[in-house]
Amino acid sequence: MGGPEIDRLIGLLARLPGLGPRSARRAALKMLQHPDTSMIPLAAALTEAARAVKPCATCGNLDSRDPCAICADPHRDRSLVCVVEQVGDLWALERASVHHGLYHVLGGTLSALGGVGPEDLNISSLMARAGNGEIREIILALGATVDGATTMHFLADRLRPLGIAVTRIAQGMPIGGALDVLDDGTLAAALRARRPS
Amino acid sequence: MGGPEIDRLIGLLARLPGLGPRSARRAALKMLQHPDTSMIPLAAALTEAARAVKPCATCGNLDSRDPCAICADPHRDRSLVCVVEQVGDLWALERASVHHGLYHVLGGTLSALGGVGPEDLNISSLMARAGNGEIREIILALGATVDGATTMHFLADRLRPLGIAVTRIAQGMPIGGALDVLDDGTLAAALRARRPS
Repeated sequence: MGGPEIDRLIGLLARLPGLGPRSARRAALKMLQHPDTSMIPLAAALTEAARAVKPCATCGNLDSRDPCAICADPHRDRSLVCVVEQVGDLWALERASVHHGLYHVLGGTLSALGGVGPEDLNISSLMARAGNGEIREIILALGATVDGATTMHFLADRLRPLGIAVTRIAQGMPIGGALDVLDDGTLAAALRARRPS
Repeated sequence: MGGPEIDRLIGLLARLPGLGPRSARRAALKMLQHPDTSMIPLAAALTEAARAVKPCATCGNLDSRDPCAICADPHRDRSLVCVVEQVGDLWALERASVHHGLYHVLGGTLSALGGVGPEDLNISSLMARAGNGEIREIILALGATVDGATTMHFLADRLRPLGIAVTRIAQGMPIGGALDVLDDGTLAAALRARRPS
């Protein structure tokens, strides 16, 4: 119905996480009722974000500034770096306002089954940062999965010889759980109860 | 986090039906990982659909052609017109492939409480179509709500004097239900069991 333009729009909307074919149709239909106030601004926001937003060269956070707003913030504790798997995990910690240091986004975890080795993650850049003499403690905040635990062991083994305290957030999160769906209270408790790795 | 471009994108995505703030964040994050293959094509599809898609001047369907593909289709029964509330209802009937005539999109129902009168709906255009001598039967397929029933009575009273058979789809749909969430089988049964209005 409605020509290739509508089919194409619905097809692309249906690829978004959280939207299936049915809700993509409803979203397209709702927008088509008011194209000037809904579709044109969304198209502009997408174009602008795609143009402006890049990974921070230091920590891997997504931002329209590089270094990102967190790395550039003079009020953050530069001696404390929290290592996370994904940008979504960083955002979850920021929403909870529980970490006042910097971050490092690994881009995933080591995975023997998935064929992900150290060179596939932002580990060499983490080692470079760790060697700059500014960092006192690195908090490992990866998911409580087998691959997450493996990766935290791997990182702790390499970071400890540099004389940096390596901690990991407490096992307050459900086993197998993803960090970015935790409530703020659990995130805060897990961060407070971090222990040497 | 991430600057005004990301906040703005998330804010606009969160307005889509079916996406809340959390899923809008997830959608934005997923797209930002692959801007060139997800954000730019979606922005283009939105712009193109907003430009090309208009309501059909005859029936009110949304299409990039006017008359729309249904009105222009020589294989459809031009003597049979199905009246629906919204374009989404038309799409639902088309997906079910249960109606082989034309459509007329009212744009809503009469509503005393909502202050919707006959002049607020596409009723004068329906009367004009009904007077063109081509239409043998008009099927009223509005929702099984009080306002839907009121509107079907109103339309039947005005259409019957023109010598046109006026039917309504059977009460196979749940009372209070919306037409565009019904399954195809129920839609087909309701259409088959239509009776004089």
